[in-house]
Formats: sequence, C-alpha cells, structure tokens
Amino acid sequence: MRASILTIGNELLIGDIINTNAAWIGTFLTEHDIEPVRSVTVGDSESEIVHHLKDCAKVSELIIITGGLGPTHDDVTKHTLLRYTGGSFTEHKPTRDFIEYNFEKRGIPVSKSNLAQAMVPDTCEVLFNKAGTAPGMWFDFEGVVLVSLPGVPSEMKYLMEKEVWPRLAQKLGANGTLFRHYMHTAGIGESTLSDIEIGDISDKLVDGVQLAFLPHSHGVGLRISATGTTAEMARARALPLIEHIRRKASEHIYSEVQGDDLPAAVGRLLEHSKKTIATAESCTGGLLGSMITDVPGSSGWYNGSIIAYQNELKTSLLGVPAEILQQHGAVSAETALIMAKAAAEKLGADVGLSTTGIAGPGGGTEEKPVGLVWFGYYDGERHFAMRAQFFKNRKMNKERTALVALDITRRVLTGITRMPYDAPVVVG
Amino acid sequence: MRASILTIGNELLIGDIINTNAAWIGTFLTEHDIEPVRSVTVGDSESEIVHHLKDCAKVSELIIITGGLGPTHDDVTKHTLLRYTGGSFTEHKPTRDFIEYNFEKRGIPVSKSNLAQAMVPDTCEVLFNKAGTAPGMWFDFEGVVLVSLPGVPSEMKYLMEKEVWPRLAQKLGANGTLFRHYMHTAGIGESTLSDIEIGDISDKLVDGVQLAFLPHSHGVGLRISATGTTAEMARARALPLIEHIRRKASEHIYSEVQGDDLPAAVGRLLEHSKKTIATAESCTGGLLGSMITDVPGSSGWYNGSIIAYQNELKTSLLGVPAEILQQHGAVSAETALIMAKAAAEKLGADVGLSTTGIAGPGGGTEEKPVGLVWFGYYDGERHFAMRAQFFKNRKMNKERTALVALDITRRVLTGITRMPYDAPVVVG
Repeated sequence: MRASILTIGNELLIGDIINTNAAWIGTFLTEHDIEPVRSVTVGDSESEIVHHLKDCAKVSELIIITGGLGPTHDDVTKHTLLRYTGGSFTEHKPTRDFIEYNFEKRGIPVSKSNLAQAMVPDTCEVLFNKAGTAPGMWFDFEGVVLVSLPGVPSEMKYLMEKEVWPRLAQKLGANGTLFRHYMHTAGIGESTLSDIEIGDISDKLVDGVQLAFLPHSHGVGLRISATGTTAEMARARALPLIEHIRRKASEHIYSEVQGDDLPAAVGRLLEHSKKTIATAESCTGGLLGSMITDVPGSSGWYNGSIIAYQNELKTSLLGVPAEILQQHGAVSAETALIMAKAAAEKLGADVGLSTTGIAGPGGGTEEKPVGLVWFGYYDGERHFAMRAQFFKNRKMNKERTALVALDITRRVLTGITRMPYDAPVVVG
Repeated sequence: MRASILTIGNELLIGDIINTNAAWIGTFLTEHDIEPVRSVTVGDSESEIVHHLKDCAKVSELIIITGGLGPTHDDVTKHTLLRYTGGSFTEHKPTRDFIEYNFEKRGIPVSKSNLAQAMVPDTCEVLFNKAGTAPGMWFDFEGVVLVSLPGVPSEMKYLMEKEVWPRLAQKLGANGTLFRHYMHTAGIGESTLSDIEIGDISDKLVDGVQLAFLPHSHGVGLRISATGTTAEMARARALPLIEHIRRKASEHIYSEVQGDDLPAAVGRLLEHSKKTIATAESCTGGLLGSMITDVPGSSGWYNGSIIAYQNELKTSLLGVPAEILQQHGAVSAETALIMAKAAAEKLGADVGLSTTGIAGPGGGTEEKPVGLVWFGYYDGERHFAMRAQFFKNRKMNKERTALVALDITRRVLTGITRMPYDAPVVVG
C-alpha cells in the first residue's frame, strides 16, 4: 500500500512550526509496511487541499491528512472534505456528549463553535478522539482511503495508533494489532550491542517482527515490534526476540519502560535499596546533580553535591591533598577516588560519585587530551576509579560524563561487575 | 512573488530526519515578502520530482529545491534538472578547484565521484558553495526560477543568504541586500517588552524594516531586519528602530550578538571586572553551575558550588542555622541570603549567588506553592534576596530559576537597580 501525507496549516508553511507530524507519520507508515510516497504541506486553502487530494489519489491508495480541524474560521479541512466527498453535516452524538462532559467538568460554558466540532460529514466514519475535542474522520472515497486527523501531535498519534491502524490492518487483510516493546541500554555502543552482544537474530525476525536501534544521548534504545491478528499473537511473535536480547544484553539494559531515562532508573535502585547518594563534580560542573534532580522525588535519595571547579576547592572542600594534585593532577584516578569518598562522607550519603576531566575545548595536553575523564565511586564496601576518553565537544563531554557516572552506579547497585564500555577499574 | 518548496530525500519521507529545511525556508521567504504557497517532500524519484516541478510552476514563480545533490547514485536531483531543462553537463572550474584544494588540505585523495560534483547543467547559473562541495544551481526556466540547493542545512542556509537572496532581490527589482540585527533580552516578558517598554514603533516600520519577537528559554530575542539596494542603505533604514529599542529597553538587553546566551554574557562581565563567582544551589540542583560551565573558559571566573539539596547540608555546609530553617523554612529570603553569602565566603569568590525553591511537582503548600523561588545575591557591598513565582513544571522551573539568577548578576554587575520582572528585593 502506498500513502501520501497531506499536512495543512499556514503556520507549517511559513515555518512557525516545524512539521514533526509528517516525520512521525512517515515513520509510523514505514514501520507498518506502508510506503510513504509523497508529503505535501499547504495552507488553509480549499482549492489547494482539493488539488492535492486529487493529485495524491493518482499515486497512493491512502492519504493521511492532518490539521485544519479547529473551531476557528480559518480551519477549512472539514468543510473541504464535506464538499469533496459530496456529504452533508450530521451530529456525532458521542463526540457532542464528550465535549459537553469535558467543559462541565472544568466549569466552563460550552460555546457554539465548540459544539460545532461534533458536526461531521455523513460520508465519513468517525474516529472517536478521546485525546481532544475534534473527531478524526475516515472516508472511503473513489477507491482511496482519506483519513483526516487533528494537527495537535498527541491527538494525531492517539488516533493513528488506536483508530486508524486497526482499520488499515483490516483493510489490508493484514495482521490486526501492533505490539511494541522498548528496551533502554547504557554503557555500550550501537555496533557492539548489535554485532557482539545481541548477535545473529535473523531466525527471530520473521512474521513481521522487527528490531530498531534508536541511539540517543542516554544510550541506545531498542524497539521491538510485531503484528498479529490479536494482541496476544503479536506479543507471542515478539517474545523470542525480546527474551534473546534479555539473555544476551541484560547487563546493559536499564529499563524496559517506554520514555524512561537513566537518572530515574538509578533513583529507583537507590530507593529500593534505601540508599542515598551524593556527588563531587569537577568537569560536569553541576550537570550530574542537575540530571539527578530532574527526577521528581529525587530529594528522597539525593543529598547534594560539591562542585569543586577550582583545584583549591578540591583541597579545601573535598580534602584532596595538594601533593596529589601536584603529583597526579586533578584529572587522575587518585583525585577521583578521594573526591568520591569525600562526597559520601562530607554529605552524609551511602554512595559517593565523582567526575573530574577535561571538558574542552581548551586545557588538553598530549598526555591528558580534551575528553579525558576519571570517575570515582565509593560506597563503604567498594571504592574504585574508572577512566573514559570522550570527544572534543564541551557540552557533549559533560553529558556523556554525567551519564556514564550514573551507569557506573546502576551497575554496582545491580551487582554487575562489567563497567560501561568494558573499562577497567583502579581500586582505591 | 509566490514560492513552492520542494524537499527531496527518502530519509525525509520516512521520517528518519525531521524536515527543518522546509520550515527554515518558509520563514526566510516570508521575512523577505515572498509567499510560500506549498511545500512538497518526495523521495529520490525522477518522475515524482518532474511531476512537482511542473505542478508547482502553475502556482508559483519560484521553486526552491533542496536535497539529492550528493555524490551517490540515489541522488538524482541534478540529472533530473538537467533533463528537465534540456541542458548538458559542463565542468564548473571554480568548484573543481575548490574540491581539489579541500581534499589536498586534508590529505585525502579526490575520488571520481567527488569531482563529478563540479559537473553542472549548462542551463544553470552556478551558486558557488563555499560551505561544502555540491554547488547550488539557479535556473530561469519557462518563466519560473528553479533554485537547487544541497540538503545539508548549513550549506542550504549559506547559499540562500549569500547567493539566492541577492539574485532574487535583483529579479524582484526590490532592495538588494538584507540587513539583520539581533538583540537578546532577559528578565522581561514578551508583551511587557513589546507594549510598555518598546511602545509604538509604527513610524519606524517603514521601507521594509521589520521587527520580530523570538521568545526562547533564555528570554525574548529581537530580530530587526531591513532591505536596501546597498548594505549601508539597509543598515541605515534599520538604525532608527535599533536605537529606539536600545533607548527604551537597554536594561533588559544582555547582548546584540547573534547566537549569544546569558551565561556567556555574565561570564564576559565577570571577566571584564576581574571578579569570580560561586553558587549555592538548592532547587536548581546543579543546573545553575552546569549552565555556567557550559561556557568555554568559565574556569577563569567560576569557582564552584555547594548543592545543598537536603536541609541538613544547608546547615552543615552553608551555615544556615537550624532555627532559621525551622522558623522561616528553606524556601525563604532569610535562607537565600545566608546561602549566597556562604557561597562567596566558603568558595572564596567575589560574588555569591543562591537559589532555593519548590521545583515541583510535589512539595507545595498553600503558603508556599510549587514554583516559588527565592534568590540570594552577595558581593561584599550588596546583599539581597529576591522572590519569583514560576509554574508547575519541574524542569522548566529549574531552567527559569537558573536564568533569573544569572540575570540578577548581570543587572548588578552593569549597575542596573531594576530586577528581573521588576521584582522587589529584601536587603540582607
């Protein structure tokens, strides 16, 4: 099946809003074995919309339309589709009830233009929108499926997943439901994860089962998807691959919940083991603490930090002897070890974590280049330092450093001895 | 003049890359009084490209094409334009020389496919691309201007500004060059800045002079643009507006350099006055330190921070008496004042800056709701606290707090007594 995407709105055309809907729909269709062949953006103009409905019908059997469904006069999509398909307006009772219920709940009077959102062409099947007020519409017109969805990304995505895909699957005679599962990894590169840890999975990529690698700043995400006539069947098809990955790469997986992140995962581990953590930062300059305190409720397990950006403060606040700084330098295993222990002791935490490195762009030497970082970990039982070599970009180096520090903590707290990127440790 | 935008690439269609080029071009055209009427994305397909070249020519006098100019076989744009305009290939010597020079400089042998980038249709005028290797092309074909540009955003933008706009301006018989000036403000809302501070400027918005408000997380940006037959004339036209804004809103302007940010501006002020700064953070949890240390060279003026996330640490590390915490609470003018002074004194800095607040989503009370923040400032001479009320979103509250803390510092260092958002201060 070939598809066209028609996104409507002057704000898209003049670049006030970047067209993320078109990208999301393109990905969604591709993942579901539907080929996007064209994506068109036009303003709120009836003649332009009709021109492209006709033109796209020549190259595709499906046209996904977003935008122009709001209650204001410049939203012309619904009227255009009404006239294009030769229908007349009828009220969709469940949508009207839902609008009234929502306004009542918020204690706001319902206006005429709000209720007008429940009026739909009688040539369409309504896609009931629980995520907003404008209903989606499904037309089967002259051999082409026209799907009209609101432009609000959350509503568009809700309708695509819950209402559009089941109907498309049925139409395609394909497998009816889509199962998706996410796994988040840290401390391992994409190619090592794929080629060495997970290895050959060709025998598991059958019956529509797919694996996507999604590298992002917190690590490499994995998305496993499968289709089936029932949800249970789709899940059953994906399960062998999921279990294979769990078996092969468990040490690197910090979460299997969509949208989760590493600081939150570390927070749960600390909460669960009733431990607190404190940090001593140099090169991250507060970013490690900031990532931790982005997690709601982190005050339950995070004590605080000493950011000793100047070397004198490493001595006065963290007790790193001046001789150590002179002999080994601030960026050294020795300094990282003392910083981590001082963080735990001076801030009264069970775990102390430290970072010291050369963030760049200046300050590098041949022996200690930009991007070199030492990490320290201390929890009373374990006390070690670990080294990593990152890149030239200051902000990226800070981010990588904070995340690797958190991943070290995650690994120790879950009893994993392998460190991120298989780095060796220096025991303190 | 009406324009169509034609972006080419399978990666755009399937959503691997979000189409930021189309948005940028839409904004650029709108700012230059050219109306974008349609934006189309297609894959690397000759028939689709030709179809839309013809179709767009019916509704627009200008078609901006991006993408598909790379050296690989799936980049078909150049061959398509060659055949569409009935030309034959010829070598563009300056481009060939530039490619050879660049490869030589990097010590890499030039391949045949690299040199092929210098071959262009003889039906076009070459837009010399100093930002990359693929030249842009300008065709005047059957009454429509076709502009073909590389898909790499930096190269596309370079060519639009330096090569395409001057030619378009000439063609339009319009003013030949564009002058743009940026002003960055902080500590003031968009509507107050526009309506109260800047006020009526209708007499200055003449001869193509335009003012755009660009709100972003660091404050509200202002972009003043003007066109003229010469650069000097364009600048002269914009100057009355720029000087008016400087006169009316100078206290809020932290920079007039494009792409500048508030932490860097504060850093320059500290460097210039040979002062150092230290922070004591609670609700920002390290974000203030992290923003400061995002600035390259910040080690020259930033000493460090104590993040006292737990109240006990406010007492043990920053000397906030337990009675103060009990009587006034951690989120209070009293606590903020002591934290700021302790930051300066314990970390040996000229300026001490503190934040303490309720980031949310939990922890709010009727008296002290989520989003309430107290700031403290101390520099030996001045010692004061300031209050702000932000929103429900934790990350946004952290970011706003860090930026307002920096803006307080900027204002004091430049001798401005008005505080951000005209907040009153509590003198310590």
